[in-house]
Amino acid sequence: MYLNADRAAAAAAKGEKVLLVRNETSPEDLRGMIAAEGILTAKGGVSSHAALVARQMGKVCVCGAAALQIDYAAKTMTVDGVTYKEGDFLSINGTAGEVYPGQIPTAASEIVQVLIEKSLDAHKSQAYQNFWCAKVTRLSVRTNADTPEQTAHAIAFGAVGIGLCRTEHMFFEGHRIDAMREMILADTQEHRREALAKILPYQREDFVGMFKELKGHPATIRFLDPPLHEFLPHDDAAQSDLAKKMGVPAEKVKQRVKELHEFNPMLGFRGCRLGIVYSEISEMQSRAVFEAAAEVQNSGIKVNPEVMIPLVGFKKELDLQVEVVHRIAGEVMKEKGVKLNYLVGTMIEVPRGALTADEIAQTAEFFSFGTNDLTQTCLGMSRDDSGSFLGPYQELEIVKKNPFATIDQSGVGQLITMAVEKGNKTRPGIKLGICGEHGGDPDSVKFCQRAGLSYVSCSPYRVPVARLAAAQAMVEEEQFKKKKRK
Amino acid sequence: MYLNADRAAAAAAKGEKVLLVRNETSPEDLRGMIAAEGILTAKGGVSSHAALVARQMGKVCVCGAAALQIDYAAKTMTVDGVTYKEGDFLSINGTAGEVYPGQIPTAASEIVQVLIEKSLDAHKSQAYQNFWCAKVTRLSVRTNADTPEQTAHAIAFGAVGIGLCRTEHMFFEGHRIDAMREMILADTQEHRREALAKILPYQREDFVGMFKELKGHPATIRFLDPPLHEFLPHDDAAQSDLAKKMGVPAEKVKQRVKELHEFNPMLGFRGCRLGIVYSEISEMQSRAVFEAAAEVQNSGIKVNPEVMIPLVGFKKELDLQVEVVHRIAGEVMKEKGVKLNYLVGTMIEVPRGALTADEIAQTAEFFSFGTNDLTQTCLGMSRDDSGSFLGPYQELEIVKKNPFATIDQSGVGQLITMAVEKGNKTRPGIKLGICGEHGGDPDSVKFCQRAGLSYVSCSPYRVPVARLAAAQAMVEEEQFKKKKRK
Repeated sequence: MYLNADRAAAAAAKGEKVLLVRNETSPEDLRGMIAAEGILTAKGGVSSHAALVARQMGKVCVCGAAALQIDYAAKTMTVDGVTYKEGDFLSINGTAGEVYPGQIPTAASEIVQVLIEKSLDAHKSQAYQNFWCAKVTRLSVRTNADTPEQTAHAIAFGAVGIGLCRTEHMFFEGHRIDAMREMILADTQEHRREALAKILPYQREDFVGMFKELKGHPATIRFLDPPLHEFLPHDDAAQSDLAKKMGVPAEKVKQRVKELHEFNPMLGFRGCRLGIVYSEISEMQSRAVFEAAAEVQNSGIKVNPEVMIPLVGFKKELDLQVEVVHRIAGEVMKEKGVKLNYLVGTMIEVPRGALTADEIAQTAEFFSFGTNDLTQTCLGMSRDDSGSFLGPYQELEIVKKNPFATIDQSGVGQLITMAVEKGNKTRPGIKLGICGEHGGDPDSVKFCQRAGLSYVSCSPYRVPVARLAAAQAMVEEEQFKKKKRK
Repeated sequence: MYLNADRAAAAAAKGEKVLLVRNETSPEDLRGMIAAEGILTAKGGVSSHAALVARQMGKVCVCGAAALQIDYAAKTMTVDGVTYKEGDFLSINGTAGEVYPGQIPTAASEIVQVLIEKSLDAHKSQAYQNFWCAKVTRLSVRTNADTPEQTAHAIAFGAVGIGLCRTEHMFFEGHRIDAMREMILADTQEHRREALAKILPYQREDFVGMFKELKGHPATIRFLDPPLHEFLPHDDAAQSDLAKKMGVPAEKVKQRVKELHEFNPMLGFRGCRLGIVYSEISEMQSRAVFEAAAEVQNSGIKVNPEVMIPLVGFKKELDLQVEVVHRIAGEVMKEKGVKLNYLVGTMIEVPRGALTADEIAQTAEFFSFGTNDLTQTCLGMSRDDSGSFLGPYQELEIVKKNPFATIDQSGVGQLITMAVEKGNKTRPGIKLGICGEHGGDPDSVKFCQRAGLSYVSCSPYRVPVARLAAAQAMVEEEQFKKKKRK
């Protein structure tokens, strides 16, 4: 186990099996998370950063193990009086949420062995045979993926497209983060455009890779969503480094971080608010999507991009962003001499979006319910901060299940049902899906079937579970119909 | 002008007229705000801390004057190249949001001169005569007040009760904050009870003062709402001081501040979540309310307390808190040998509260719409962080008016209308009011009339405006009815 992203990555590079242990993770830990086999945190819960990213990557993760006492300076971790140092072995069980001392041998599930590792013959696995029966569903299952590899795994598991490609990860990797930071520090639109131009080729390449894996399956691509301060370093040393790299005074970096600080970043300058105030960001992202689509289509592979605008609460927000997407799509099609099919739609993830879904559907060609944020705003409950009271809340039976794991049907579900009705009223048959992590939870999948959604989307390694749940939902519906007929 | 609460208070004590200038204010600046005639901040907007507190106190305030560059270390402020030092004179116009160099003489409005200062004869003021005509309203106007003085002013302006008494201010003043901090640092319920017992007599005394001013008018008392970290100091020096005072290691204070840190405090461990996890807080507050009520009633003055549980999203939350209130009320009535009339209800301030208002009304005897928080959660928009994009949003006509100043009728208004219908269905004629600062905005007041609320509540100095708006709403309604009849 290692307590720091850099040391975790270094150990993995030397061939060690690495468990990354942190109080909590942030985007700055991404490198260490990629290198690690598993992730263990002292804080957070089912929908904290560590859990989301690990699930997305198909890694084992235990979050919120409050008994861990981590001493970053001493590079040790103490649990129940026993102290572990970096390099020591620990094992974790992500399903049970348990941590064991020492190394426990593990094996991939038979489904993974058959479909991903290809180390097991399909006919020899009963588990695989059972799973593959799950074919008769009305709800289709898509995946949340932002790399070609994740896409390939999900397709192997039976996903029929990408329901959520979070493009923010495309601003982080390697040199891109430098250009992103340059953009954030820029004082003029011109300077921001120059910085964005450096990111464009990387994002285009990412999309090319994913479109190729999808072979014509649809890809819902969400434009930049998180607040900009998430892309800047927060400690003094890293800020000084960045200032040096950018050739600006350290004070300027500090000042910008301070300016971007928010009291409640979840409710702040993020989502389409960014793309509206800095339309050059949406322009660059549109160009990356459509140039990639043109390239792949010209190579003879079908493409079906669906551009998704996040955090829309007002129709006019969507109108403004849709104008940018259509304009750039038109430019690219003219430049490349191709005709591209694409949709533009929105996430419904703030209550106002659901309440005014009839207006929004005048512009939106699809809705995708972002049930993570919709739960946070509908309940007034932060996924990252609810750990302090959700325990007592479950004991007192105020909530039956963690609302970030299983959809709160009477609250959040009511907003979804309302938006489905209103959306269909304005645009009959509007495409409807869900892309929060609830898409991988069986109870929530069954709710989605009843609500009349057409697909759920979840991280690649949850696709098999979601497909089973979709099949079960179908069986339950048939049984219910039969009962009614009697 | 002074840049620090302590120096502002010291200057005011010497008889200077003080303008407190800060980047933004926090509860730690309260002492300086009380001492100041006016408050000017570089950050924030119409519903930031500075604006809310100033409005409540009836002080002039300009928030979000982005051109101000404040240098706390040098004790200077620079605007457009001109530098001002502490002690220099500036004047501000809270209505126009303007700042002027030098001292401009001002006078209180004639309404204030007649009703509060009693320096002008009512018959000599045409403005007063016009105002006092506003008598025929269906909506009554209450006030947001948490001191006897504010209550007295509001009653003089024609308020017919308190619609929102924010009890958190009762944990701050003088020595109370020490006991509050002791409670927050306590490790056991027993220790927390001891600390709370020290606060009880102060809160009881506050309530006695308000009940006496109200003379039987109802008082809606909201139980503790803000997250606990707001009561702890955030800089090293103050934390060390506190540790010394409490006789605990400085590390313990730091640790507790760290534990209580939240990513999104607006969506965190606050409101009824506090009273549920630490029921001893609600017990103490109930005791303070009912002991005060018993004392005032025994002195021959009628009392009408309405206990209001904040941030309810689930019926069960309210059930648990109502049980505490009834239990303590019963104890006090038995101890004092009196019969007290009181109501227990809830704020509707998260979308889930509105969506499940039919369930909640099984327990709630009244609803008061907390439109500040309801706007924040419905729109997914932080009042404190929206300054960075609300400007462009108004220019682009995404929002017509600042939703924190004037109710967003199609979004937030829809939730209110829904809750009114659902509440009435379960409990016909349920008492309905609004207590966000929207209660002082004429357009919002007219919306409240149409929505069928029975009262609005606003800060004392906005009561006259709200009463006029209520009268105008009545006139508009009558005209509308006449038109329909024709």
